[in-house]
Amino acid sequence: MGVVVSLEGERSPSLAPLTTLVADDMRAVNELVVQRMHSPVAMIPQLAGHIVAAGGKRLRPLLTLASARMCGYAGRRHIALAACVEFIHTATLLHDDVVDESDLRRGLASANAVWGNKASVLVGDFLLSRSFELMVEDGSLSVLSILSRASSLIAEGEVLQLTTQNDTETGETRYLEVIKAKTAQLFAAACRIGAVIAARPKVEEDALETFGMNLGIAFQLTDDVLDYSATQMALGKTVGDDFREGKITLPVILAFRRGDEAERTFWRRTLETLEQRPGDLERAVDLMEKHKALADTVERARHYGAIARDGLGIFANGPEKSALVEIIDFCIERTY
Amino acid sequence: MGVVVSLEGERSPSLAPLTTLVADDMRAVNELVVQRMHSPVAMIPQLAGHIVAAGGKRLRPLLTLASARMCGYAGRRHIALAACVEFIHTATLLHDDVVDESDLRRGLASANAVWGNKASVLVGDFLLSRSFELMVEDGSLSVLSILSRASSLIAEGEVLQLTTQNDTETGETRYLEVIKAKTAQLFAAACRIGAVIAARPKVEEDALETFGMNLGIAFQLTDDVLDYSATQMALGKTVGDDFREGKITLPVILAFRRGDEAERTFWRRTLETLEQRPGDLERAVDLMEKHKALADTVERARHYGAIARDGLGIFANGPEKSALVEIIDFCIERTY
Repeated sequence: MGVVVSLEGERSPSLAPLTTLVADDMRAVNELVVQRMHSPVAMIPQLAGHIVAAGGKRLRPLLTLASARMCGYAGRRHIALAACVEFIHTATLLHDDVVDESDLRRGLASANAVWGNKASVLVGDFLLSRSFELMVEDGSLSVLSILSRASSLIAEGEVLQLTTQNDTETGETRYLEVIKAKTAQLFAAACRIGAVIAARPKVEEDALETFGMNLGIAFQLTDDVLDYSATQMALGKTVGDDFREGKITLPVILAFRRGDEAERTFWRRTLETLEQRPGDLERAVDLMEKHKALADTVERARHYGAIARDGLGIFANGPEKSALVEIIDFCIERTY
Repeated sequence: MGVVVSLEGERSPSLAPLTTLVADDMRAVNELVVQRMHSPVAMIPQLAGHIVAAGGKRLRPLLTLASARMCGYAGRRHIALAACVEFIHTATLLHDDVVDESDLRRGLASANAVWGNKASVLVGDFLLSRSFELMVEDGSLSVLSILSRASSLIAEGEVLQLTTQNDTETGETRYLEVIKAKTAQLFAAACRIGAVIAARPKVEEDALETFGMNLGIAFQLTDDVLDYSATQMALGKTVGDDFREGKITLPVILAFRRGDEAERTFWRRTLETLEQRPGDLERAVDLMEKHKALADTVERARHYGAIARDGLGIFANGPEKSALVEIIDFCIERTY
């Protein structure tokens, strides 16, 4: 997978330094998440708990915690705001489940499959509203402005993605717009609010936003590669979700544009009309390999990773900065 | 339909005095709604425009405008906040369309039927987030607190409704909890913020909240009656949506509890297992008539209407107060 820029050269880049550094804070975030997703309507904590328990990497709240700490913040507000960020993300996942009719999320049965579409939409609404309640309790209009804007942009990005779905004419520029909005905006906001609560100058807010935005793009590019990854397949993980739904991601865009007419006919049949037969996913992966579409998507991810790294340049060296730099490599080299 | 307490005795209670009184403000609200639902992603204004153009009564933003005016407010903030209230309501409608698989909303094809579930969920998310952006621009943490809390409670109420759906054991108390949360909370919040921006004492905020809450309950009770109304049927309007979905509303609860075992078997078959045959809706209406379930639901609405009216008691008489009082009767006597 090319050059791994790890601080220790030998080991793979990992989330461990970051999670260790903010372990206590993260425990507090998890407690608050459980506490604030509570409702007398039992289905809400049941359903929300299902997706929260599924865990995931908690990357976004980790970014808020580490950004605040790197900015020298010594208070407790970052705990609640990290929980806000996680609630916004969880609401998106729940609505994504409805939207994409995906059956599996993080290896567990999706909330949608267990409780149905209705409940997923409404519990998502509850979590999004609860997130705003938490922000109001925090009381910062700057933070509210950043996160409400991120939330609009995410929804906008999801709708934009809908209009590109099943459309093989979609180009790289449009794809980038989609992933910036639907994924990278929340990464950017999660980082930026760290500087805001630490009352750092605007240049540091901007730097953290640049870091988060480009990290988010690199993260999504890698995610889109993993959905066609032979390694993932070998590990028994679910791949091919994007293919089955006809999502136009960069690996598809590159393979389509580099392919001949017969190949384009294949892509149109499988992704536009969704006429898919046994062996089609394997053929898609073969075509991507043939045209280096997966390797080049990883290269693109590295490009954004490099910008993210330079975004952190103005901050003093220290354990938080090192851990954040390592996350860039982790996001690009990860196999999960 | 019983006693109509109208100021002029003769004519039916109407929205007209209220809409006339705040016509200029309402025009400004409509302009702002159109402006702020704009997005470079064309599907967003298209879909949102569809539901906004469908119109409806704009009752909730009217309440904000009139409440602010009755409190002597002379500024412009009520315009944007009325738009916020309408956005929250529209987002709920869009998510309700997904949820209930309803085919018609306000007589037009539902957004869901035209654009699909995905788009309805995501555009709803966009409008809800946009509403919070507008509130942040307004800059009042009190208003943000009231509307973010209302938004959580609405979602909670919708989930609670889901757990009562198809359950004929649901009682009146549980039903009231549902309609308070899913409908009346937004009426209450829409009114309360009028006093907040006018910087009126808390007793007036509370009074407007009482007015809105009880008006909202009366409104929903009437809505639930209209869904079984023979008059509506005769007018060619869609009725029976609640019946087809197995929603447990007060007319059902009263008819079920007042019925014999054979009737309860009918209700269980049609609403719990949703085994519905031609003529079942008509039989449901007959059973409701037999047990005075519809008339008594209207009586219940009048009870809440009376509380709403007393809620306004502390405000000085004037055109806004008269118009708000008339809305109570309109909400109960309306046939649409």
